[in-house]
Amino acid sequence: MESYYKHHVFFCLNERGADAPRPSCARQGAEAMQDYAKKRIKKLGLSGKGEIRINKAGCLDRCEEGPVLVVYPEGVWYTYVDESDIDEIIDSHLVRGEPVERLMI
Amino acid sequence: MESYYKHHVFFCLNERGADAPRPSCARQGAEAMQDYAKKRIKKLGLSGKGEIRINKAGCLDRCEEGPVLVVYPEGVWYTYVDESDIDEIIDSHLVRGEPVERLMI
Repeated sequence: MESYYKHHVFFCLNERGADAPRPSCARQGAEAMQDYAKKRIKKLGLSGKGEIRINKAGCLDRCEEGPVLVVYPEGVWYTYVDESDIDEIIDSHLVRGEPVERLMI
Repeated sequence: MESYYKHHVFFCLNERGADAPRPSCARQGAEAMQDYAKKRIKKLGLSGKGEIRINKAGCLDRCEEGPVLVVYPEGVWYTYVDESDIDEIIDSHLVRGEPVERLMI
């Protein structure tokens, strides 16, 4: 069965309070990076059925390794720091099908 | 490579206004069903790494077929009406590995 989306990307956008004992992705720039990725995929003309979907998600429960995202159906997990990391995940993994080893968790 | 979660389930919880031209999952009981599924999986002792994760998600962009959820890494999409549908997805697909044809979209 073919996947509805070729790559379905979920960004954890969970936010905990500043005093919470566990870190949370939203406090590490996740919202801005999800927005950036979504706009870039749209600009590349790669969004929609049969292509790529950049999604918001609640807590993915890998908080200590965050900020995190996961790409399905392949189930590859990444962390990232900034737009250049997101660009590398997009250009290498999502466009060329070559996962980015250095950002995997 | 083994999947971090054996089954990673994403419920669309997107909400549009009452006057929006497109339907939205949150206006069809999605939040209560996600909460129900999460609690039931926990009660069954099946949550966590190597097991099952019931996740919240933003718009999955299959609004007209909603409310929807997707199970990865297998990429099986479902719609549902009530707790009995959620129970069937849990008991058949998530526990026994037998997807529920009648609820697939």
